Amino acid sequence: MAVMDNKKADATQESLHRIFTVPEAPESTLGQIEKEISENLNVFLQTHIAAREKPLVEIEKDFQSADIPEAPSFVSEHTHFLLNKLVAQSVNTSAPTFIGHMTSALPYFLMPLSKIMIALNQNLVKIETSKAFTPLERQVLGMLHNLIYHQPESFYQQWMHSANHSLGAFCSGGTIANITALWVARNNALKPQGDFKGVAQEGLFKAIKHYGYDDLAVLVSERGHYSLKKAADVLGIGRNCLVPIETDGNNRVKVAAMREKLETLKQQNIKVFAIVGVAGTTETGSIDPLNELADLAQEYGCHFHVDAAWGGATLMSNKYRPLLAGAERADSVTIDAHKQLYIPMGAGMVIFKDPTLMTAIEHHAEYILRKGSKDLGSHTLEGSRSGMAMLLYASLNIISRPGYEMLINNSIEKARYFAGRINAHPDFELVTEPELCLLTYRYVPARTQYALQFATNTERDILLDDLNDLTKFIQKRQRESGKSFVSRTRLTPEKWGRKLTTVLRVVLANPLTTEDILNHVLEEQETIARQSLISYPKISQLTESILNRTAVKQ
Amino acid sequence: MAVMDNKKADATQESLHRIFTVPEAPESTLGQIEKEISENLNVFLQTHIAAREKPLVEIEKDFQSADIPEAPSFVSEHTHFLLNKLVAQSVNTSAPTFIGHMTSALPYFLMPLSKIMIALNQNLVKIETSKAFTPLERQVLGMLHNLIYHQPESFYQQWMHSANHSLGAFCSGGTIANITALWVARNNALKPQGDFKGVAQEGLFKAIKHYGYDDLAVLVSERGHYSLKKAADVLGIGRNCLVPIETDGNNRVKVAAMREKLETLKQQNIKVFAIVGVAGTTETGSIDPLNELADLAQEYGCHFHVDAAWGGATLMSNKYRPLLAGAERADSVTIDAHKQLYIPMGAGMVIFKDPTLMTAIEHHAEYILRKGSKDLGSHTLEGSRSGMAMLLYASLNIISRPGYEMLINNSIEKARYFAGRINAHPDFELVTEPELCLLTYRYVPARTQYALQFATNTERDILLDDLNDLTKFIQKRQRESGKSFVSRTRLTPEKWGRKLTTVLRVVLANPLTTEDILNHVLEEQETIARQSLISYPKISQLTESILNRTAVKQ
Repeated sequence: MAVMDNKKADATQESLHRIFTVPEAPESTLGQIEKEISENLNVFLQTHIAAREKPLVEIEKDFQSADIPEAPSFVSEHTHFLLNKLVAQSVNTSAPTFIGHMTSALPYFLMPLSKIMIALNQNLVKIETSKAFTPLERQVLGMLHNLIYHQPESFYQQWMHSANHSLGAFCSGGTIANITALWVARNNALKPQGDFKGVAQEGLFKAIKHYGYDDLAVLVSERGHYSLKKAADVLGIGRNCLVPIETDGNNRVKVAAMREKLETLKQQNIKVFAIVGVAGTTETGSIDPLNELADLAQEYGCHFHVDAAWGGATLMSNKYRPLLAGAERADSVTIDAHKQLYIPMGAGMVIFKDPTLMTAIEHHAEYILRKGSKDLGSHTLEGSRSGMAMLLYASLNIISRPGYEMLINNSIEKARYFAGRINAHPDFELVTEPELCLLTYRYVPARTQYALQFATNTERDILLDDLNDLTKFIQKRQRESGKSFVSRTRLTPEKWGRKLTTVLRVVLANPLTTEDILNHVLEEQETIARQSLISYPKISQLTESILNRTAVKQ
Repeated sequence: MAVMDNKKADATQESLHRIFTVPEAPESTLGQIEKEISENLNVFLQTHIAAREKPLVEIEKDFQSADIPEAPSFVSEHTHFLLNKLVAQSVNTSAPTFIGHMTSALPYFLMPLSKIMIALNQNLVKIETSKAFTPLERQVLGMLHNLIYHQPESFYQQWMHSANHSLGAFCSGGTIANITALWVARNNALKPQGDFKGVAQEGLFKAIKHYGYDDLAVLVSERGHYSLKKAADVLGIGRNCLVPIETDGNNRVKVAAMREKLETLKQQNIKVFAIVGVAGTTETGSIDPLNELADLAQEYGCHFHVDAAWGGATLMSNKYRPLLAGAERADSVTIDAHKQLYIPMGAGMVIFKDPTLMTAIEHHAEYILRKGSKDLGSHTLEGSRSGMAMLLYASLNIISRPGYEMLINNSIEKARYFAGRINAHPDFELVTEPELCLLTYRYVPARTQYALQFATNTERDILLDDLNDLTKFIQKRQRESGKSFVSRTRLTPEKWGRKLTTVLRVVLANPLTTEDILNHVLEEQETIARQSLISYPKISQLTESILNRTAVKQ
């Protein structure tokens, strides 16, 4: 190698070194931002996220080029770009006025701990790249198992760190958790038998033929999360075979309807291998009658899965824990730590009652996950994974169960307060009562509420259509004005003949949301509604015509 | 409510508030740690991670209780626990001497940017909780698409931000990426036709019956990643239907063998719906002949997927890009950003050539992912996801393509240097040449290498067994001594009659790994080997007996 080449090589090595070793000076742009975040996260978010949002097409203009840059950017320059174009137009999901989705402010200590986690960059798929993080994650899964199933200490001594067993899986979120649960259920239902090596080895086609079924099915409330449909698709069962069962006036699955469906499918030789109970529906926060579903699962020999992605954290509250009675009879339970356990995005879990259940999806490789190793990756759907479990571990210790109970109780009671305000307001109508901290409602002028009682079916349908449009308009306008955010969804309440009804949806999990804020949210919606009613003239016209007719008749 | 109750409620609210709003003081334990990480991450890791590792059972003692604490811990106290018991016993995956797995030091600017990402806590499943992060992620997918497929600018203008299309999916890692690719391939192969509504709706059993196949299959090299087997299981195809095809002396799939298998399966009426090419096998870094596989896929009408989780980043290097020739003909490509794009753990991607392909897995819900929305969640396997794409976006801009080229070239050339050292050493034997920056080798005394040429099959097998044990011992002892880490795996080289051969495996992706370090690693292995040969007496006994016999004969 010539002298010149050596010099060039050294320069390259030097510049590579810099990217990986030279830290940001405290006075640099990034150093300043770090300081701002550390000093007061809420102020940082308020300062840098623009209150009034731009239309998406405007934002897209800053993210147009598909070319990977041919020249490097300075860190400070690029940071300014990110602050002005990305952060400024992101969503302040932790704002106490952002009550439309399942996000919240986060405990402060998690910011620096996240930095440690990312700096350590462990890979939880195997012990060789995670060491102590592996027993830590196993302990976290044990703690959640204990929260749900309360087994004696000896149970955890035996199973928590057992090489060939797993009490569950930590994963990126509730969707992967639900898929994992149904994957395990499917593989156990179609397990090896005689010459047949099981669905994991031989696939669904041969499995269904071997067992002589005409097809498979999973039953769940019509309010079940859309991830279950996705699971049915991925797992090769088919979305149609995820059978939705009608709910009652409280958005809880009708057990009698489920039993009837179980009977029908049995007669059709269709194997129902899992029943899913929902503990905290995404749209209304309702909890299915878990004990009765457990009875059904037992009677019909199905896996009983409880999707408690949202509601599972309620088990932390001694006061409200009874709402989830029966969850302890589930074969598997999904809980999202990034929801009501207040962990940053990307922390889901599925927990299995029986430590041997996950054997049905066990897999190995030559270079890792060797048989008998304690590598977590042999029982997870995902491969490489970060050390997120550390954040939950720290929160469980620092907040502790009674701290979580305070948070949960506070949320539920705030939802009841807000429901009370809606009920007390003549022009708002509560659509679903809060069972947990979710509720839905809509704006309907008092006179229209009254008129609806006397409307013909045709009149009712016309009114519902316009009320749906009005609700949608209120939600969008409020979001765009940037002061607060509630979401919207569509339900099919029995009282309006199961017609699709657009409702405002509120999730009250942010401990910084005050009663004052809730009152302002309602006032703002009322103002928007009053100003825009003129654009929906049929509402008042039809209301008056119904009331006139009624007055004449009476 | 009594006065006392009000006071109590206020106190609760106050204490909840504190957890969510009071930042750590700069002089607190956590504040100090943040400062240490910011000032010099490598020093922080060296200081806090213990060099000599404890046995796992010892570590487990600190993670025993399945009880969720009934009393809160002080943040500072718990941080000390984490430092002493977790961080101290974690793995320094970014150490330049840790060359056994696909981890590396990370660019410095990613630490503060990660903090911004976590503080913003966006949820990329929908625009309402991610806003500008959605076009940013779509742009990142576009850039990677461009890297692989080089479509004209107009292509990206048309598709990158199109509501009902997606150029790919950002996900937690290569496993989810591979599952997504095969999910799409499966659903497109068994798409709706006439009265049949497609496998997504009706499931695999009805789909296979409708199309009249006897079963399905996917073909891949025997060196394919274990996640593909997992995918075959999850997707209901069955692990047996992921058919491994023999590799040649360079660990590349034998195209003729694959063609033969395609013919056999065709005659058996088994539908091969996907061929997978590997671009950078996990164990040896080998690249399949992608162009020839593309020809096969075209000829037999299969989806062509390239698993470039590891090797995909090589496309950044104009010099080594030709190694992946043919990748641009793939229908889908997996690339992990947390591997050779130097992003923290949890960043995978699958990219689809045709923007309409992912329609096969599209799904919607009432409250989000409404039809026509640009919500990313309608085309992902995962649901809620963090804003990791931001870190890749920043790295693509700050490092730029030529910067990545420097990193890639540097790694490959370092691997060649190390291979040269191994070849030059009489007592080491290179098992696989580095095509990318991975190589495998083992310690075999020079005399034994010579003797093996004259060994009977029985003698060879006995020697191989003991050499395997020795290799395993060297790898474990070196890891335990804590100075450096290489991994091990088992291969089936043709030259030893395809007998399972344990080898040392090295991945040279960390730009901080120097030639000096590599020389030390080899020296340490040599020392361990010499000291421990006495425990494997058969190696020298048999060697001498073979050589004696040979000497007599000659």
